[in-house]
Formats: sequence, C-alpha cells, structure tokens
Amino acid sequence: MTTATTRTTVRAYHRARFQGDIPAAARTLGESFHFQSPLVTSDSTHQHLGGLEAFLGIVTGVDLVSELYSESEATLIYDVHTSVPAIGTQRTAEHFHLTDGRIDTIRLIFDATPWHAVMQAADLS
Amino acid sequence: MTTATTRTTVRAYHRARFQGDIPAAARTLGESFHFQSPLVTSDSTHQHLGGLEAFLGIVTGVDLVSELYSESEATLIYDVHTSVPAIGTQRTAEHFHLTDGRIDTIRLIFDATPWHAVMQAADLS
Repeated sequence: MTTATTRTTVRAYHRARFQGDIPAAARTLGESFHFQSPLVTSDSTHQHLGGLEAFLGIVTGVDLVSELYSESEATLIYDVHTSVPAIGTQRTAEHFHLTDGRIDTIRLIFDATPWHAVMQAADLS
Repeated sequence: MTTATTRTTVRAYHRARFQGDIPAAARTLGESFHFQSPLVTSDSTHQHLGGLEAFLGIVTGVDLVSELYSESEATLIYDVHTSVPAIGTQRTAEHFHLTDGRIDTIRLIFDATPWHAVMQAADLS
C-alpha cells in the first residue's frame, strides 16, 4: 500500500466517524481490529463503533491540528469540542496502523482526567 | 526545510531529552517556543527543560511506537515506563511544529489521571 492509500482510508474513517456514518467507518476497518484508549480496550469493530453515537451526542465540533501519513501508519492530532463543561475541549492523538489498506489498530491518546467524574455522575463507570 | 531535516532535529531532541542532555535538547528548540501538556503550559525553553531531570528520575525506559515526519511537523508515539506504580507505563503522543529546522511548538498528549494523585501526594499540585 502507498501513503496515498493510507491518507484516503484514514481520512474516510475520520470523516465517517465524526459524521456518525457507522457503515462508512466500518468499511475502513480490517477484520482483525484492536483498539486501545485510556478508558476502553476492544478487539471488536462492532463494540468500537457501537459507542460512537453516545459520544457524538456531546461533540459540537472538531479541529484537525495535524495529519501525518506513511505507507502503513498515520497519526492525527485534533481538538474535540464538547457540550460538557467538565470536559470542554479534548485534545486527542490517534495513531492508526493499517494492513492491506484497512485499519487494524487504533491507539487513542487523551487526558481522561475529566471523564472519570463525568462517567461516575452518569453511572457509567 | 525538508522532511529529513525534521527527522534529524526531532530525533535529536527525543534522544537528548531522555538522556538528560539538556544542552543538546535546547539546541533543537527555537527562540520562540511554546509547550502544551495536560499538566503544564510554558513559553520558555528554560522552564520546559528545567522540569526534565525530576521526570527522568522516575523513567526506567522508553519504547518508540511510531514516528512520522513532514517538512514542518512530526508526531511521535511512545510508551514511557516509570518506576512509580501508580503511573506505570505512560502512553504518550508528542506533536512538534518546526520553523527553519528548529522546534517552535510541542503539544504533549497523555492521560494525566494518575498524575494528580501522585502530585498531591508529593505536594506538587
């Protein structure tokens, strides 16, 4: 695969995910899939994308800070603006590894500090 | 500047910083410098590098997961192993912006959750 393929796939995932287009996001993910974040670890694309709708319910905007690509990897840096005052703007890094043009690993990195109080309040913890 | 210049500068910063070689790290930073992390914001290279020694005191190893470069940007993903059980391994993303081959902005992203308790215990908060 080429850097251009990586860019196309990761941009499609990023766009679909924040538009809530779960089928389009799912098409960019491989059959083998692994997701890690400070709050969740998952080996299931279904589980990963299943949590998207609730998250998008609090997202008011996304500013892409940086996108860097290689033949098999990408890292996006972006700020997610939310409607939850305790969370505010969440600066996020997302690292993708791809095999055969599909995303097989996502590492999501952000400061989860404010989430713990919000999840406790919502009894999600 | 070229992608190769960015790679050379950012790798030099990364190596010097984890070796505690503050003069070598300082040589990669621009006169105008801005640093943002979940715990600290600084516009001073002196202040930024001044905190390094205390941090390195708890670092037992670093595993680089990914490095991606362009002409004016880079993002590293790495796992910092620490000797502090409450922190453990800190997955970190670090985004660099460069001007004229020197780093002028660093955005450090990690889950600061465990740090708050550690800093309170050490009365650093």
